[in-house]
Amino acid sequence: MGRNLVRLKGFDKLTDVDEAFSIFLSRIKLKRLRAVKIPLKLASERVTAEDVVADHNLPPFDRSAVDGYAIRAQDTFDATQSNSKILKLIQNGRIGKNETGLIWTGNMLPRGADAVIMLEYTKPLQDKIEVRTPVTPGENVSKKGEDVRKGEVAIKAGTRLKSHHIGLLAALGVTNVKVVKKPKVAILSTGNELVEVGHKPRLNQVVDVNRLILSSMCLNIGVKPLDLGIAEDNIEKIKSKIRMGIERADAIITTGGTSVGYADLVPKVINQIGPPGVVVHGIAMRPGMPTALAVIGEKPIFILPGNSVAAMIGFEVFVRPTLLKLLGVRSEPRPVAKAKLTRRVPSALGRQVFLRVCAFERGNEFFAEPVSIKGSGVLTTMTEANGYVIIPKDREGLDKNENVLVHLFDNLRREECV
Amino acid sequence: MGRNLVRLKGFDKLTDVDEAFSIFLSRIKLKRLRAVKIPLKLASERVTAEDVVADHNLPPFDRSAVDGYAIRAQDTFDATQSNSKILKLIQNGRIGKNETGLIWTGNMLPRGADAVIMLEYTKPLQDKIEVRTPVTPGENVSKKGEDVRKGEVAIKAGTRLKSHHIGLLAALGVTNVKVVKKPKVAILSTGNELVEVGHKPRLNQVVDVNRLILSSMCLNIGVKPLDLGIAEDNIEKIKSKIRMGIERADAIITTGGTSVGYADLVPKVINQIGPPGVVVHGIAMRPGMPTALAVIGEKPIFILPGNSVAAMIGFEVFVRPTLLKLLGVRSEPRPVAKAKLTRRVPSALGRQVFLRVCAFERGNEFFAEPVSIKGSGVLTTMTEANGYVIIPKDREGLDKNENVLVHLFDNLRREECV
Repeated sequence: MGRNLVRLKGFDKLTDVDEAFSIFLSRIKLKRLRAVKIPLKLASERVTAEDVVADHNLPPFDRSAVDGYAIRAQDTFDATQSNSKILKLIQNGRIGKNETGLIWTGNMLPRGADAVIMLEYTKPLQDKIEVRTPVTPGENVSKKGEDVRKGEVAIKAGTRLKSHHIGLLAALGVTNVKVVKKPKVAILSTGNELVEVGHKPRLNQVVDVNRLILSSMCLNIGVKPLDLGIAEDNIEKIKSKIRMGIERADAIITTGGTSVGYADLVPKVINQIGPPGVVVHGIAMRPGMPTALAVIGEKPIFILPGNSVAAMIGFEVFVRPTLLKLLGVRSEPRPVAKAKLTRRVPSALGRQVFLRVCAFERGNEFFAEPVSIKGSGVLTTMTEANGYVIIPKDREGLDKNENVLVHLFDNLRREECV
Repeated sequence: MGRNLVRLKGFDKLTDVDEAFSIFLSRIKLKRLRAVKIPLKLASERVTAEDVVADHNLPPFDRSAVDGYAIRAQDTFDATQSNSKILKLIQNGRIGKNETGLIWTGNMLPRGADAVIMLEYTKPLQDKIEVRTPVTPGENVSKKGEDVRKGEVAIKAGTRLKSHHIGLLAALGVTNVKVVKKPKVAILSTGNELVEVGHKPRLNQVVDVNRLILSSMCLNIGVKPLDLGIAEDNIEKIKSKIRMGIERADAIITTGGTSVGYADLVPKVINQIGPPGVVVHGIAMRPGMPTALAVIGEKPIFILPGNSVAAMIGFEVFVRPTLLKLLGVRSEPRPVAKAKLTRRVPSALGRQVFLRVCAFERGNEFFAEPVSIKGSGVLTTMTEANGYVIIPKDREGLDKNENVLVHLFDNLRREECV
């Protein structure tokens, strides 16, 4: 209990969440990191650094979309169930009037033909086939350039590469792709009371779970965590760790040492290291009120509260969007669900509240069950929840049955939440 | 074009999607794979193999949730703005009547105290503090076992470990966790026409993108792909590759060689290898009609069409849920969005259609824009889409403005789809 008490009163002024983030963004030039070229087979979930332009048409020529017979559609216009049309089967070359050739899916349409009739709709008769249904021009043909035209942007810069994008790039003959370098984020926990995960805490000690949680959140968006360990509540120790982070990483996250009782230890250290330093401290949000945002040189620094749920919400609201900018991702909102709130929830007027909810589906409708708010440090409010609802700061609460937008960080449940 | 044409007519009978999957599941005992113990820091996105039971309370004792002063709540009941209450500050030991002690977030509540008043609501007066607001018993205290009680299941078996689960496990002192072994899935492409990604296809050749796409889809759910390469349309060559897959992997996926024109090459080979062999062939779906499901011994085999979009849909509908069973995942549905269809879409009566759509938000409403259906092999119908809508087989189409459920495989767009 031997901390310095420099300032014991609360924050003089709390800054609104959106305003806080705007102030922070106005004080830093967030540039997308540089591009690296990697093999396509390793590019799943990476973010493209440039537009990928098709250097040829896809398909490269008119090709059959089915197994069947290449034909001139007009030869079948008068075919009906009762009035079949006979076409002569040829092995090679141009398809002439009333001629046809066997063709497989993906094969080039022979000259003369403008459509393909599926095998299933024909009857083979030695060197002829019988057709009883008309075919329209272009039917079952994938036209040259139909998928992607030469010169067209096939995949835009800033795309997180999913399986389907990988497939399209492969089809275009791309084997290496320019993606954005993974940002490196240094993660530091501060506090005399902290012990490493796996160490049995003595009385007044607490297991430091924040580095593990934040590392996992970084990995989930394709960012490399760099572990700075635990620093005691000591200005020089914190300073040397943060300096190391600034040298080696693209962004820094700290937890702890930010609330007024801790004498603003981390914000103070940051202001000593270099300008502009802390640009916002004290945010009108719950949880997360003691959060601070800082910049040193060109490096963003997120000073999150020590309590884990507040740190997670701080990551979600400030860190994640910043890291996505470093990654150059065009847009990557959380999945959302519109749901009915199962019960009334009081809120903190003047604070934007991040209400943890468990969203589930019942009888074709979505519901959001508030996870009982005990302490904000209670980890089970995150594990029992699968998303959060933002309660605006001018609301005293949300009503039962009110329609809310749930931002999902885990799967929507198909069965009721307990 | 030299393939054997054994059977040129279509499938005699198509099996409904749900029925097909039920038949398949009834022919195989899908057991969750064995457990492996791994360090918690590597466990992100892995699936727990057993319930994790708390071996102690969390918090282990009543602790303060804020920085403040530990008090007996009853001593403050008569405090008001105009009638302040003075409490004596003591350094150690039991809190007696009208006494208080400084306490930090996370610290153990001293004996005698039953609440904490925040620093912000007090005024320090040398060895006393002034309180002008009443505190209720239990206020700002995290009760022993409030987060997790000793003996309680903290994380259920079959949970995909997200950041918040990792945090809770760490807080419980768990350093190693039993997770389900990653299933290994062998992936084979068949077809004389196929060339490797990066090779320039000659006329009538096609780049094999399916292995890369399916590998990426496996990696996304934490499954290890095993590349079996490309097999020509030759019974012995396909057989030796599939045998290798059965030996080395937990499941096998093939693409190509399944439609009637290809003489059912892969299904035929599978039936030669061992029982029960192909259990369903020809499914009432679009795309993906020639899909077959097979079992050899205890190994599931998915015989998907060669066209990439059909293969992706087949993975989504049959492979993904099967692999999740091998992983022992309790439930992992895709995120869904309820949206209004932007235009009328015709459908194929008698087939369950997987309509690719681009879902977006406009003015607080969700819309689903059908991605124009050209060939089912057209990869851009997947890259332009972010989800799919299931059109039941008894519908001739969907109406404009109809409410549909979009299963999202990529981010919902915040701007209109082009």
